[in-house]
Amino acid sequence: MTTKLYTYWRSQAAFRVRIALALKGITAEKVTLDLLKGHQNAAEYRALNPGMVVPTLIDGDGPPLVQSLAILEYLDEEYPKPPLLPADIRARAHARALAQMVAVDAHPFIVPRVRKFLEEKIQLKEKKRVEWVRHWLDEASRAVEEALLRDPRTGIFCVGDAPTIADICLVAHFASVKLFGARDISQFPIAQRIFTACMALDAFAGEHPLHQPDAPAGGEERV
Amino acid sequence: MTTKLYTYWRSQAAFRVRIALALKGITAEKVTLDLLKGHQNAAEYRALNPGMVVPTLIDGDGPPLVQSLAILEYLDEEYPKPPLLPADIRARAHARALAQMVAVDAHPFIVPRVRKFLEEKIQLKEKKRVEWVRHWLDEASRAVEEALLRDPRTGIFCVGDAPTIADICLVAHFASVKLFGARDISQFPIAQRIFTACMALDAFAGEHPLHQPDAPAGGEERV
Repeated sequence: MTTKLYTYWRSQAAFRVRIALALKGITAEKVTLDLLKGHQNAAEYRALNPGMVVPTLIDGDGPPLVQSLAILEYLDEEYPKPPLLPADIRARAHARALAQMVAVDAHPFIVPRVRKFLEEKIQLKEKKRVEWVRHWLDEASRAVEEALLRDPRTGIFCVGDAPTIADICLVAHFASVKLFGARDISQFPIAQRIFTACMALDAFAGEHPLHQPDAPAGGEERV
Repeated sequence: MTTKLYTYWRSQAAFRVRIALALKGITAEKVTLDLLKGHQNAAEYRALNPGMVVPTLIDGDGPPLVQSLAILEYLDEEYPKPPLLPADIRARAHARALAQMVAVDAHPFIVPRVRKFLEEKIQLKEKKRVEWVRHWLDEASRAVEEALLRDPRTGIFCVGDAPTIADICLVAHFASVKLFGARDISQFPIAQRIFTACMALDAFAGEHPLHQPDAPAGGEERV
């Protein structure tokens, strides 16, 4: 069975799915798209992914799978071991909520199509675009740290002692925080500790944006 | 057991949870917050919801539940009948993806804290803020229509012939499209047909933003 992932090195959403595939031990062929060059808008990609965003996962003969959070749930249902969600219903809700606090409340604001719109339609200068990106990253970092601080379920990882979708989204978020020069992760000590615990695992570290075949040599680029 | 929902009339996220509760036949006490007045930033609300966003669901003695998409999954796991997701794994992924095409790729851009940031920090005039809101609503409307058009699983509802989280998010999205005067839903005929099918159900129609206790008389306000 062929598994194929359409990915972009710096995309948080693609990073999430790469981590999940690695945790599940699934090898996927990577097809890289350059979002800054608009590869995602090509007709043949749009036929797979009408949102014209990464990632898209092709897993065997079924239709293309889109939207990273939906793909994480798919992978967890189709390949249950190791689980990416706790067993307890309220703990599952907590893991999903932590994931969404960064993936829904911050990540959408920093993606290429939004930065492009701010630049071209709103005529926002680079300094203001950087302020925009960092603001939403910072807000979500603060919120997720606060949630981790007060919740008794916080363990070695975000919810207990095994990685879940919350850790996957947290790591992708803080990778962006570093790449975009937002507030240093040391300001968020629990998140930092969990980030470090995750990055000690090959499934997380090996799929880091800067280790991707399409990452630029310097790892930095304009916002 | 007490069930309490912190809600705001125009919030898509709160609307989604109201629909899900209604579909499940769960009665919740509604606590309304005025997001434009900053009620969500009060210390006592932040203690429940560190993201300082609506909705928050209190369901019995457990900790507060936050993030609307996580709450929908919680409700479906805790109260399985009627299901809000199909049984088939790939169909579940499709329902979640359609939900996220509007809830993740458009909704975050139009919430009060983002419009406030655009106004106060970016000094964007109202005309440009309206353009911003409508652009992201239009993009997601187009994407979801395209996904519905090409997928053989599209039925009376988004995925088959029973409402799922995809329909919940689609209805909340198009309610915003109407409230914000974005491109008319008739431009998206399949979405329009499904929206109409949903609004024929009490669980959807009865929880519409304009039927909420905190909705203003005219139903319109500035962006």
